[in-house]
Amino acid sequence: MNTFGTLFTLTTFGESHGAGIGVVIDGCPSGIALDLSAIQAELDRRRPGQSRITTQRKEPDQFVIQSGVFEGLTTGTPISFWVPNQQARSRDYDHLAKAFRPSHADFTYQAKYGTRDYRGGGRASARETLARVIGGAVAKQVLGRLSHVEIQGWVSSIHQIEMKEEPTSFELDTSFQQAVRCPDPIIAEKMYHFIDSIRKAGDSVGGVITCRVRGVPPGIGEPIYNKLSAALGAAMLGINAVKGFELGSGFTGTRMKGSEHNDLFYREGDRIRTHTNHSGGIQGGISNGEDIYFRVAFKPTATIMQPQESVDEQGESVILEGKGRHDPCVVPRAVPIVEAMAAMVLLDQWMIHRGRRL
Amino acid sequence: MNTFGTLFTLTTFGESHGAGIGVVIDGCPSGIALDLSAIQAELDRRRPGQSRITTQRKEPDQFVIQSGVFEGLTTGTPISFWVPNQQARSRDYDHLAKAFRPSHADFTYQAKYGTRDYRGGGRASARETLARVIGGAVAKQVLGRLSHVEIQGWVSSIHQIEMKEEPTSFELDTSFQQAVRCPDPIIAEKMYHFIDSIRKAGDSVGGVITCRVRGVPPGIGEPIYNKLSAALGAAMLGINAVKGFELGSGFTGTRMKGSEHNDLFYREGDRIRTHTNHSGGIQGGISNGEDIYFRVAFKPTATIMQPQESVDEQGESVILEGKGRHDPCVVPRAVPIVEAMAAMVLLDQWMIHRGRRL
Amino acid sequence: MNTFGTLFTLTTFGESHGAGIGVVIDGCPSGIALDLSAIQAELDRRRPGQSRITTQRKEPDQFVIQSGVFEGLTTGTPISFWVPNQQARSRDYDHLAKAFRPSHADFTYQAKYGTRDYRGGGRASARETLARVIGGAVAKQVLGRLSHVEIQGWVSSIHQIEMKEEPTSFELDTSFQQAVRCPDPIIAEKMYHFIDSIRKAGDSVGGVITCRVRGVPPGIGEPIYNKLSAALGAAMLGINAVKGFELGSGFTGTRMKGSEHNDLFYREGDRIRTHTNHSGGIQGGISNGEDIYFRVAFKPTATIMQPQESVDEQGESVILEGKGRHDPCVVPRAVPIVEAMAAMVLLDQWMIHRGRRL
Amino acid sequence: MNTFGTLFTLTTFGESHGAGIGVVIDGCPSGIALDLSAIQAELDRRRPGQSRITTQRKEPDQFVIQSGVFEGLTTGTPISFWVPNQQARSRDYDHLAKAFRPSHADFTYQAKYGTRDYRGGGRASARETLARVIGGAVAKQVLGRLSHVEIQGWVSSIHQIEMKEEPTSFELDTSFQQAVRCPDPIIAEKMYHFIDSIRKAGDSVGGVITCRVRGVPPGIGEPIYNKLSAALGAAMLGINAVKGFELGSGFTGTRMKGSEHNDLFYREGDRIRTHTNHSGGIQGGISNGEDIYFRVAFKPTATIMQPQESVDEQGESVILEGKGRHDPCVVPRAVPIVEAMAAMVLLDQWMIHRGRRL
Repeated sequence: MNTFGTLFTLTTFGESHGAGIGVVIDGCPSGIALDLSAIQAELDRRRPGQSRITTQRKEPDQFVIQSGVFEGLTTGTPISFWVPNQQARSRDYDHLAKAFRPSHADFTYQAKYGTRDYRGGGRASARETLARVIGGAVAKQVLGRLSHVEIQGWVSSIHQIEMKEEPTSFELDTSFQQAVRCPDPIIAEKMYHFIDSIRKAGDSVGGVITCRVRGVPPGIGEPIYNKLSAALGAAMLGINAVKGFELGSGFTGTRMKGSEHNDLFYREGDRIRTHTNHSGGIQGGISNGEDIYFRVAFKPTATIMQPQESVDEQGESVILEGKGRHDPCVVPRAVPIVEAMAAMVLLDQWMIHRGRRL
Repeated sequence: MNTFGTLFTLTTFGESHGAGIGVVIDGCPSGIALDLSAIQAELDRRRPGQSRITTQRKEPDQFVIQSGVFEGLTTGTPISFWVPNQQARSRDYDHLAKAFRPSHADFTYQAKYGTRDYRGGGRASARETLARVIGGAVAKQVLGRLSHVEIQGWVSSIHQIEMKEEPTSFELDTSFQQAVRCPDPIIAEKMYHFIDSIRKAGDSVGGVITCRVRGVPPGIGEPIYNKLSAALGAAMLGINAVKGFELGSGFTGTRMKGSEHNDLFYREGDRIRTHTNHSGGIQGGISNGEDIYFRVAFKPTATIMQPQESVDEQGESVILEGKGRHDPCVVPRAVPIVEAMAAMVLLDQWMIHRGRRL
Repeated sequence: MNTFGTLFTLTTFGESHGAGIGVVIDGCPSGIALDLSAIQAELDRRRPGQSRITTQRKEPDQFVIQSGVFEGLTTGTPISFWVPNQQARSRDYDHLAKAFRPSHADFTYQAKYGTRDYRGGGRASARETLARVIGGAVAKQVLGRLSHVEIQGWVSSIHQIEMKEEPTSFELDTSFQQAVRCPDPIIAEKMYHFIDSIRKAGDSVGGVITCRVRGVPPGIGEPIYNKLSAALGAAMLGINAVKGFELGSGFTGTRMKGSEHNDLFYREGDRIRTHTNHSGGIQGGISNGEDIYFRVAFKPTATIMQPQESVDEQGESVILEGKGRHDPCVVPRAVPIVEAMAAMVLLDQWMIHRGRRL
Repeated sequence: MNTFGTLFTLTTFGESHGAGIGVVIDGCPSGIALDLSAIQAELDRRRPGQSRITTQRKEPDQFVIQSGVFEGLTTGTPISFWVPNQQARSRDYDHLAKAFRPSHADFTYQAKYGTRDYRGGGRASARETLARVIGGAVAKQVLGRLSHVEIQGWVSSIHQIEMKEEPTSFELDTSFQQAVRCPDPIIAEKMYHFIDSIRKAGDSVGGVITCRVRGVPPGIGEPIYNKLSAALGAAMLGINAVKGFELGSGFTGTRMKGSEHNDLFYREGDRIRTHTNHSGGIQGGISNGEDIYFRVAFKPTATIMQPQESVDEQGESVILEGKGRHDPCVVPRAVPIVEAMAAMVLLDQWMIHRGRRL
């Protein structure tokens, strides 16, 4: 399924080494003067080629708007973006035409469809995620019309290097100055050097992104089967290389007692708040007004610059070695993707809530 | 949203202390002789009142089929089940009419809807999950017609007590003899006593369920936004008290290098297999034929038998203390729910796959 | 598919001669004091056994609410209704166990599912439509909170007997005093006697229902593929025995010139209105503030009290003759069904509109 | 909503005078060698500028495929088409920036969205329908892999000029040689001259398209709320200028008795067939194996070359006169659109059927 959402929907198309990546946003409210430079800025945050620790594939990732905006305002009709592929070096992939790269989607696409575009992962390439960043950038601007919502992600761990404290707002605002997008400059430095050493070794590494959403009022989110927590989880687990998701206390919460874990209520002015926030801002699938926060686990990049055993379509043994340009660690570049998915989920559930409320 | 799935759908209704819980299954193939005792057996696995460590609310949870089955065969029309509530002691909840229990959904439902059925959590009660168990029991029977699929969950940790090894098939098949549903009898014993001590202290505790799905051929699952992994994650994160989900290597995988994490392919007879299975049986959102396995994190039960600070609807301070009958640990009873959700997700994606395949 | 709608959804289950008919309404706003007698009144309008010209099957069609309402208010959770079947005389259908009634759904259900509940049409029975009347009755009450909307249908033709003029409000309000639900008492009398003569001849007859919706503001309805007109059409074409739908000028409009057909705009106070209303209140799929009106064609009842040729499951010739109790004309009883479907479509599209509007 | 379908989906974007029209087809089976010239041929059948009786806007309507096809085969990923707008003379529409053309969607889009792209109707332009023709052309090719299905539409009436007999296959196959797409050459001639006279008078006219689908086996179609008949109706009522839909006997059937209308079954070789086909090939929402046939009513084109009264956004009176290039009758060009929508509906329901069938 290449469409995401119920009332605010994102449909994407295009492959890594085809003509480009396309994006269709449906359900966006009309009358909004989209800030195009803010959309480009989000794309730039995801863009490769910005430091030694990301792929050297340099693509400007510039979009063209093809519909849905007239005289500077959204019209309520589908907004489409087109991002042409420019630096596709498909020949790098010829050796993969018949072989399956380990821990990629080559084999499963072949099994499912009986054919595949093997160049750069085709549709399964992380290049598709730029479409999500565009969708999220638009969603953020719509959210901004509903409330003062802040969605901020950061790299909280790379391999064993971990930032355990919650960052301050100042640190968060400046974390994109760090190539690794970790708000603690000392830990960021360590992460950077670790990733660089991994890159030199032709290897790759994973990590965790933490995301915090501020400013969501209580009451947003569906109960039972489309819980805000479940929708966020599905959105994150749909990002390439993601293997885990936890909200609030997550797996750590399984080692706590109820008397430690329960978030006790108190009144603060007009608001009902909780002293702790092990719930991660969501209870029963619905926002409670506290910060929504969650963590997303990324496995190490599957492509490595080392020879690996594999098989071809006939099951014959082959030795594969990564060619082309790849990220030794996708986590830093994934921060805007995580934020984007969160923004779309939140807006969609907010719209559903508004639609049903008298 | 109270409906789950695309082609095989589950719609549920009913509150904890209302007339009963209703289930509508739509899209079930026709001509199946449903094994009703197998459905009842699944319900019984979830049923409370079976040992000291679960709530003493004793409900037979017997269902009536109200439609969709004729002369013993499914007809292709909606199959509905009705499970009446019998032992509802609503008076236990009178003191909650105006107060919000910590870490329950009381406050968020009130915030969203402006009103709520406060008796036993109303719609947010875990009692709704029996509907999922019924849906999953039907899905398992349909899956059995497609292939030899085995879906088995077990309690792999309670608080800090953890079973790290993967259980043998024998252990799994007998794990339901253990009240805590942990297949290692020695660890199960520890867990049991720990939960019982927690119960005596009026406290509660969380844990982790691991689930393994065997026998799914390669090629099942949607790419991009409804990935099998994302759909499983959403299904699990929609279960009451779940705060985390990880597939395959999960969060541990974030601390591995690509050279360690990649699952190398080899041929085994006709099949293409992988030596390791850090992917958890899913690559690019699509099954690869290896065991699908994932872990689900449950927080400690919110209701505890200790006084807790809270507020009422006016924000005034109140002291609440759990009354009624509650589980000190929901994890053992949640095993069949996890399996049921997995069965429904898998069948639904399998149906989508069959529908689009020539 | 047994679920209808996007944000306001109706799921139904149950067969004509099974335990009963069930209804689940999801997405209904919370805090509404449902007027249960108004729901019963709508059901009574659809109920058989009210005059010589409808089936003599006498069923009170009394519903029980099983969830979603607490202390007299909707809670925002699924509202379910259960209407037990009481007077099912299934033995009347034994002769149909293996034979296909002409122009019924017996053969197509058998072809699709390989099995069927042959008693009284099973799931394909018009008895299912009482679920829609309940859904519509709830939708009407919600619509009443959004605006002063009036949805009124009437029988505008039976066979060749036609009421061509648009009825006055007075006539409409009193049309349910007529057994045939035609607001012109003289034409109603003719229709009644015609249907009665058809009944005596053991035959059946069709007719047309016209429906008018007043009070919908401009701007409701989706563009392109879920146009308000298309959604209304699908809703009506999903009613048993319906073979046609036309909005505004409909088929008559195909014989007009643009200069005659165009609805010219003018200003009336604050409103922009049209002099004529060939558009039927919808332009480009979106309401324009004029009356929405449309016509629905019902074929003659398939069951007749005359011997008819048919075949059994082996294709062998059989002679069938209607038994049981049937309507010689379903059109009068279908008026509340048409209104109900219109109410649900309108509310659903209104909710979508509200959800996306800033 | 700009997406159509459940398993085989069409998403479209783009406005009449924007950059172009885009199409995304999702759910198309993999491994199909799309016949691109057949797609272009369908587009050419819809294309304007082919005779005196259609708009003189000459556009080649040539598409580019942007994704989803690799080495000549569909890959199972979204297939996207882009059709640039070339001959857009937007200045023709400057006078409409603030005024509402009668019986167009100008006013309703303004009411719904508070803004609109007024050039050529923007999103509401019939130019969007080329996207549907592309989607239908792909669907036809997939259907051809499932069975020998023939979908053929023709113009059966223009104003009062009507072709009452069903055309022979030979006539149908040659009807596209007629500018008016009526298979009877004598009636076609009359229609042509009538439309031409209407054109000279600066007026417009409507008509009816009949469509016949052959080769669908019994059992395709959903029961109750997504009946094949309802889905076809919604698809047709979503086409610009459509005001009515009837299946089989349609409105004429309302004037028949059951004894005349019922389609009696008989056996023909292995098949169970009906002597007559008033049902139009669908009973209870499910195909019965007979020809599916239906009629679609098109109102006269709203744009006429005569002065008409209207109002501007402030409600002030204005006189509008059609400029630009318009069809005096859209019906001939709409034939491939009707066929395309039928193909997509049929394929989608067929896929759903296959998905749920064991």
